[in-house]
Amino acid sequence: MSLALQLAAILGPRGWIPGHEAAPWQRDWLDRYGGRPLGVARPASTDQVAAVAAACHAAGVPVVPQGGNTGLCGGAVLGQPGGVILSLARMADIGTPDPASGSIEVGAGAVLQCVHEALHGSGLMFPLHLGAEGSAQIGGLIGTNAGGSHAFRYGMMGDLVLGIEAVLADGTVWNGLRAVQKDNAGYPLRRLLCGAEGTLGIVTRAVLRLVPEPRQRATALLTLPDLTAATAFGIRLRAEAGEFLTGLEFFSGLGLDLALEHVPGLAMPLETRGSCYLLVEVASGSALVPLDDILGGVLEQGMEDGLVLDGALAASEAQRAAFWRLREEQPEGQRLEGPQLKHDISVPPGRIADFVAEGAALCEGLVPRVRINPFGHLADGNIHYNLTPPAGAAGFAGRDQDLGLALAKLAARMGGSFAAEHGLGRAKIALADAVRPAVERRIMARIKAAFDADGMLNPGAVVGGVQQE
Amino acid sequence: MSLALQLAAILGPRGWIPGHEAAPWQRDWLDRYGGRPLGVARPASTDQVAAVAAACHAAGVPVVPQGGNTGLCGGAVLGQPGGVILSLARMADIGTPDPASGSIEVGAGAVLQCVHEALHGSGLMFPLHLGAEGSAQIGGLIGTNAGGSHAFRYGMMGDLVLGIEAVLADGTVWNGLRAVQKDNAGYPLRRLLCGAEGTLGIVTRAVLRLVPEPRQRATALLTLPDLTAATAFGIRLRAEAGEFLTGLEFFSGLGLDLALEHVPGLAMPLETRGSCYLLVEVASGSALVPLDDILGGVLEQGMEDGLVLDGALAASEAQRAAFWRLREEQPEGQRLEGPQLKHDISVPPGRIADFVAEGAALCEGLVPRVRINPFGHLADGNIHYNLTPPAGAAGFAGRDQDLGLALAKLAARMGGSFAAEHGLGRAKIALADAVRPAVERRIMARIKAAFDADGMLNPGAVVGGVQQE
Repeated sequence: MSLALQLAAILGPRGWIPGHEAAPWQRDWLDRYGGRPLGVARPASTDQVAAVAAACHAAGVPVVPQGGNTGLCGGAVLGQPGGVILSLARMADIGTPDPASGSIEVGAGAVLQCVHEALHGSGLMFPLHLGAEGSAQIGGLIGTNAGGSHAFRYGMMGDLVLGIEAVLADGTVWNGLRAVQKDNAGYPLRRLLCGAEGTLGIVTRAVLRLVPEPRQRATALLTLPDLTAATAFGIRLRAEAGEFLTGLEFFSGLGLDLALEHVPGLAMPLETRGSCYLLVEVASGSALVPLDDILGGVLEQGMEDGLVLDGALAASEAQRAAFWRLREEQPEGQRLEGPQLKHDISVPPGRIADFVAEGAALCEGLVPRVRINPFGHLADGNIHYNLTPPAGAAGFAGRDQDLGLALAKLAARMGGSFAAEHGLGRAKIALADAVRPAVERRIMARIKAAFDADGMLNPGAVVGGVQQE
Repeated sequence: MSLALQLAAILGPRGWIPGHEAAPWQRDWLDRYGGRPLGVARPASTDQVAAVAAACHAAGVPVVPQGGNTGLCGGAVLGQPGGVILSLARMADIGTPDPASGSIEVGAGAVLQCVHEALHGSGLMFPLHLGAEGSAQIGGLIGTNAGGSHAFRYGMMGDLVLGIEAVLADGTVWNGLRAVQKDNAGYPLRRLLCGAEGTLGIVTRAVLRLVPEPRQRATALLTLPDLTAATAFGIRLRAEAGEFLTGLEFFSGLGLDLALEHVPGLAMPLETRGSCYLLVEVASGSALVPLDDILGGVLEQGMEDGLVLDGALAASEAQRAAFWRLREEQPEGQRLEGPQLKHDISVPPGRIADFVAEGAALCEGLVPRVRINPFGHLADGNIHYNLTPPAGAAGFAGRDQDLGLALAKLAARMGGSFAAEHGLGRAKIALADAVRPAVERRIMARIKAAFDADGMLNPGAVVGGVQQE
C-alpha cells in the first residue's frame, strides 16, 4: 500500500488532504519557501500523530509539523517536494484553568487568541502576546520559542511552558506533561523542544503557565529625541516601575511616517516629532498600587531631564488600543511601502543605540540611502532592524545577503543574536553557519541526530540537515 | 610523561594538588560519595581548563568539575577513584555590573555571596538566594540549575543565566557569552548546560541577569491550620500581591519543634501553634507602593476567613532575619535530630496538601510512625519531604529505597518531579531510571553522547554513564 493510502486510512477522510489540494498549507507566510507535499495530514489525536510519524519514518518520507504557519523564516513548510505536512489544527482543545497551580493544558493546535478568550473572566491570563495571535497556534509558538511584547516581564514561550507531550521521529510518544516550574531530573528536553521548530519532535500537547490578570493598567505614548535618551529612560523606568512594566516598545520616525501613510485609520496623537517613539505600558494585580502616579512620576522626571519631549497617557481602552496599533502596524506600514528586508536582532539592551547607529553606517556603506526602520522591544534589546530600498529604487542592489551578514556579525560582536525571536527556519541557516562558532553548529547537528538520526523531521530547518561527522 | 606530571606542568605549583592531599575536595557534602582522585586541578584561566580537559581526554581519564561542593546528590565528586577533580575556585573574578543591560559577567568560581556583595550599592541585585550561598559557586549553581526561595518570582538559575562559556570534553572552548534574553538561533545549548552537572561541559564563565534592587520589603510569619488553608491563602496572595511576592515558604509543626530543640538561638514569636507555618515576603522597587497595606489587607482577610490563625509582621531587619532563620534552619534542626532521608519533590502547587497527605499514608505503610518533616517553597510546589526515623529508632528499617521510590511515583502521578532543585547527581540515577519514561532516559543518554561520546565528563552522573544502543 502506498504511503498516501496508509495515511488516508490512519486519518480518515477529514484527516488527509492529497497534494493537489494542499495549496493552503504549502507556502510560508512570506511566500518564499514550500515544496509541494505528498499531502497534508490533519490528525485529531496524539495516537494519530504517532501513527503518521511511524508510517512516514518507515517509508523514509519527511514530516514537517505546521501550526498557524505565521512564521517568518520558512520553518513550517517543506524544503523539498514530496514530504508530508502535519497540521496540528484539529488538536485544538483547551482545558480548564487550574487557579491553585496557575496552569492550563491545551492541544498544540489551539490558537493563541482562543487561549486568551478561554481564560477571560478566570482572573488568570496567559501572558504571551504578538501580532499573529489570531492565527498562531500553541505548537508553533513552542516550536519557534516565540517572544513578543511582554517577554521582558513574563518570559518567552519556553519560559511559559511547564510541560510538553511530543511525538518523536519514529512515532514514539514522549509524555513530559508535568506541570511544575522546578524539574531538574536530567537534561531539559522540554527546553530543547522549545525553539526546535519541529526538528526534534512533534509537539502535540502542552501545559502552560498562567499568571494573575492585572486589575489596572496605564499606557503612555512618548516622543524622545533619540535611542540614547530612550535607553536612559528605560533604565529609570525599570528602576522605578520595573515590576509593573509589561510593555516598552520603540519605533522610529521613518516607521511612523510609513505606517501613517499606508495603514488606514491610524492617527498620531502627539504633536512633537522626534527620531524615536516609545510605547510604555505598566500593569498591576493590586488595586492599591498608585500606578498612574508611579508612571506619571517617571514621565515628569524624564521631561525635566530632556529625555522625553512629549507624551500622552491613554485615557480610555480605545485610546490604549490606538497607541498599540501605531506600534503593531509597523510591519504592515513597511510591507505596503514595497520590498523589504527583515532582520530580527537582539543586543544587550544598553547597546541598542550603538547597534542602530553602527548598523546604519554598515548599511549605508553597502546600499547608499537605504531606508532603515528599526522597531521592537527596548527592554530586552530585540530590534526588528528592517530595511526598505532607497526612495525610487526597486530593491537592494543585490546586496541582500551582505546586509544580513554584516548586521548579524555586528550583533554577535556586541554580545547579541541575529535570530532573537523568529528562529532560523530555512531562511537563516547560512547565516548561522557563517556567524556562530563551528563547535556550536556541530553540537547542534549532533543533538538533531540524537533525536532524529535519519533526518525525518523537518529536514533542512535549524541545522540544515544532519551533518554526520 | 604521566598525566599527573602533564597536569602539574600545565597548572603550576598552586594549580595541581596530588591525590594524597585531595581530602578537602574528595567527598560530597553528605559524605556519601567520592573516590580518591588522581589529583585536584585548580586552573586559573579558561585556557588552563581547556588544556586540562584535552590532556585528560587524551589519557582517557575522567574529569569531574567541582564548585563549592555543597550539592546534595553527589554530583561534584568522583564515582570511581582515579579521575581528576577540576575545581573552578580560582576563577572567581566578578565583573562590573552593566545597569543599562541589567547584566554582569563572572567567573564560574565566584561564590554567590560574593556576587551579592559586589552588587551592593549598585541598585541592582542577582536574585538567587539559598542556604549554601556562602560557599556555593556560580558554576555549581549553573550545573545544578539551582532554585531556592526566590525562584517563583525571578526564576531558577537557568532563567538567570544569559550567557555561558564552557570547555567541552575534548578541550574545545564554546564561547556562548551572549548577554541577551532573546536568542533563538538554534537549540539552546545554554539551557542544556544548566542542570547538566558538568556532564556535557565545564562551565568556566557566565553572564548573569540582574534585576533592580527593591526599595522596600515586608515580611510576615504566619500560623495556619493546615496546608489546604495555606494553598488557598497562597492563591489569594498571588492574586492580590503576586508581582511583589519574593518569598512564600512553608514548614511544619514537627520541623519547628526540631529546629527549636536543636538549633541554638532560635525563637518562635507566635503564640498560636498549628500544623503549618508560612513565611511571606513581598518587595517592591517603587517607594510609592503601599506594601504594608497590601500585605496587611491579605492577612486580615485571611484571618477573617479562618485561613490564618496567627501572624506577625517583621518590625525590623533583625526580626526579619529571625523569621527567615526559622525557615532556613529546618534542614539543620532535622540533621541534628539524627539520621534522615531527604526527598526533593515538586508537584503542581495546588497539589501540595494532597501530596503531603498521600505521601504520609505511603510512608506510614512502609515505616510505621516514621516522622515526616515537609518544608519548602509553596508558590512553586517544591517540597523538601524529609523523613526522620520513628522516635527511638536508629533508621528506616531498611526501607530507604522503597520510601524514595514510593514518593517519586506519587510525585510523577501528580504531574510533578522527584528531583525539583537538587538534581540527579549520583544519588538519584536509579530513581530516574525507575520513574521516568524509558524514551526520556534514552534521549538523555544520546544527548550525553552528542557532547561527550567517550564519557569523560563526570561519568556516572545524570545519565549513569553513556548507554550506547
